[in-house]
Amino acid sequence: MTKFLKVISASEVQQILDQFAPLDFEPVHLNAATGRVLASTIVARENIPAFPRATMDGFAVRARDVYGASDTIPALLEVVGKVEMGEAAEQPLAPGQVIAIPTGGMLPPGADAVVMVEHTQPLDDRTIEVTRPAAPGDNVLQVGEDLRLGDEVLPAGHRLRPQDVGLLAALGTISVEVHRRPRVAVISTGDEVVPAGTARLPLGKTRDINSFSIAGQLHQTGAIAALCGIVEDSLPQLTAACRQALENHDVVLLSGGSSVGARDYTIQVLESIPDAEILFHGIAIRPGKPTILARIGRKVFWGLPGQPVSALTIFTAFVKPLLERLEGERKRNIPQGATRQAELSTRLPSVHGRADYAPVVLEERNGSLWATPLFGKSAMISLLSRADGYVMVPEHSEGLDQGTQVTVQLFSR
Amino acid sequence: MTKFLKVISASEVQQILDQFAPLDFEPVHLNAATGRVLASTIVARENIPAFPRATMDGFAVRARDVYGASDTIPALLEVVGKVEMGEAAEQPLAPGQVIAIPTGGMLPPGADAVVMVEHTQPLDDRTIEVTRPAAPGDNVLQVGEDLRLGDEVLPAGHRLRPQDVGLLAALGTISVEVHRRPRVAVISTGDEVVPAGTARLPLGKTRDINSFSIAGQLHQTGAIAALCGIVEDSLPQLTAACRQALENHDVVLLSGGSSVGARDYTIQVLESIPDAEILFHGIAIRPGKPTILARIGRKVFWGLPGQPVSALTIFTAFVKPLLERLEGERKRNIPQGATRQAELSTRLPSVHGRADYAPVVLEERNGSLWATPLFGKSAMISLLSRADGYVMVPEHSEGLDQGTQVTVQLFSR
Repeated sequence: MTKFLKVISASEVQQILDQFAPLDFEPVHLNAATGRVLASTIVARENIPAFPRATMDGFAVRARDVYGASDTIPALLEVVGKVEMGEAAEQPLAPGQVIAIPTGGMLPPGADAVVMVEHTQPLDDRTIEVTRPAAPGDNVLQVGEDLRLGDEVLPAGHRLRPQDVGLLAALGTISVEVHRRPRVAVISTGDEVVPAGTARLPLGKTRDINSFSIAGQLHQTGAIAALCGIVEDSLPQLTAACRQALENHDVVLLSGGSSVGARDYTIQVLESIPDAEILFHGIAIRPGKPTILARIGRKVFWGLPGQPVSALTIFTAFVKPLLERLEGERKRNIPQGATRQAELSTRLPSVHGRADYAPVVLEERNGSLWATPLFGKSAMISLLSRADGYVMVPEHSEGLDQGTQVTVQLFSR
Repeated sequence: MTKFLKVISASEVQQILDQFAPLDFEPVHLNAATGRVLASTIVARENIPAFPRATMDGFAVRARDVYGASDTIPALLEVVGKVEMGEAAEQPLAPGQVIAIPTGGMLPPGADAVVMVEHTQPLDDRTIEVTRPAAPGDNVLQVGEDLRLGDEVLPAGHRLRPQDVGLLAALGTISVEVHRRPRVAVISTGDEVVPAGTARLPLGKTRDINSFSIAGQLHQTGAIAALCGIVEDSLPQLTAACRQALENHDVVLLSGGSSVGARDYTIQVLESIPDAEILFHGIAIRPGKPTILARIGRKVFWGLPGQPVSALTIFTAFVKPLLERLEGERKRNIPQGATRQAELSTRLPSVHGRADYAPVVLEERNGSLWATPLFGKSAMISLLSRADGYVMVPEHSEGLDQGTQVTVQLFSR
């Protein structure tokens, strides 16, 4: 029987994850860029706007011509034309003149402000009254006021959101360098595991759950999942399957086979791979203690617990952050991922010396959000589906009292 | 000039959205089910587990045989065999006997509890000492304790998360009926709009932003986006493009052309379609007032503002919830989507009589999360990208004070 090698704390795991380097780059078209992580900083290659633009429908004016204008003493000005939307405004404005302009239209030479159409009154075809004053720049977006040539627009390591893709479009950048998405092989093992499609379950067996719940997680994380199915709990078969998976993927996720039972071959598989470095074997948390992380050159190997609740918790807490790191994402100073603040509706007991990740259900009552721990046995697969997320009870705590404000890390939708 | 027809409040918009019915059904394989919405309720077709399972490594016992066992007075029991992982346990247990059993193994007939291996001591090949008592059911998951035949497992209208897909796998359900994903056509219009790939921007023009930021949003929402490009700001061309898009899609999103300017043809396009019903034209919010919603039979038509900040805000606040509704998602009693509670770092002024959706940046300082409003002109496209989300200032408020606890609706990542 192999012993647990290096049982470490959750924060030590985090330090180890922080040492992995991002994957290499590839170009993507803007159509497919949402959710990808920038490999290099984007700099504005021109001023936006490139010309002074009206931000309201109205009339382009010289501010000095409407100085002191009011309802009782309006300014009388001559209408000499109209700016066409999307056209270069070339007709200059002489003193005492205005030109009609639409929102987004280009300010003509000589004009320095826009008065809103609501503050004007036509007198005849060629003349309007302006009933409000305007300061230079009123209702105008100046050249480069939005983005200036050379401005840093988006930093390397930023995961592109829809609005960022819109900004790239505004800059005429229709292809960007992003980090490659991790290619992840998913393998299940365990003599009790049979394919999910098995209609009549033989006594003693369970269907393969982890391949599907992990692939679903990978899908949402932006990784490319390859389901490698169930591999028999035998050392030669598992070794062959893992070696094969390592060849074609950046990350291998093996669930099952990481505990200390006689049939738990993961460590033996790793020991047979010459340059495999086992970074830890066992985390002082519950659930999910029997977790293995190894590095093989630039590849990553996770041995996840076979128990589905544990596998999902470890994925959310550790595997996903590492995948985001491989994708090049740099952490910002706001909490990442979807979390919610809630009050604990009952006491949540724990054991000193290990961090507990307790599944909870969220409920809104009387305008507050309450987190209720699910106390079912952690072998119950339905726990997974009843939980909205988990609450972490720190290592050096004997539990959290009812009414404690907690941060719930949501399992992704 | 067309007048705004039916300017309504944000809550009236919500009531209108609530009246749309979901799209029809289609089967999907479990591999592709994450993120889809169940069309019918899933019921357990068998007990899980189907056999009593050990939840610890140890020995299957008859609880009465270890009654009162302790370190000083251990129970001496005969080891008569071993349960193989994944096999049916058929060897019955007679009084005074135990059988070795792995976590997840099937409890043999006659046994009613498992004692952990840590609480046993081998004496010889055939005999162990048990140093702890056990109650019937200890360290055992009973038949149907996780899910009972006939239990409602997941309700219709539930959006499947990775753990739900795992649960379906556990039940042997590898294909489920889900609602169809909305097919959405995206059209941009405006004489000033040129393709994003335009290298040298002519004076007066801007590049097409909305097609890309909206497609990015659709991608994250689970809708199927079709980019139809930029359509000229002419009534016949716009009418032809919209009619064509309505034929092949469930939803048409037209950005630009929904204001009251001379070139704003959206209402005229809708008026030319015989069974188009304009549900509203204008929402009393800022930004995004010039928004149109129409129903054409079972199809949905949105006229979105051309201004990118407005288009994104309206998408997040109204278009996305309607798409989720079309996909059949039923609201739960916890807030949906990604929100964060934060404190306002400065006063956020507003105008009585219209709801303001103010873009904010989130920052963590001294352990609290702060939301700082972005006060740039709303025509600035870089606002989009600097904002993490928005704060809603209600219609009947003149602003929110510094330090107010606010809910930030995040723009999706």
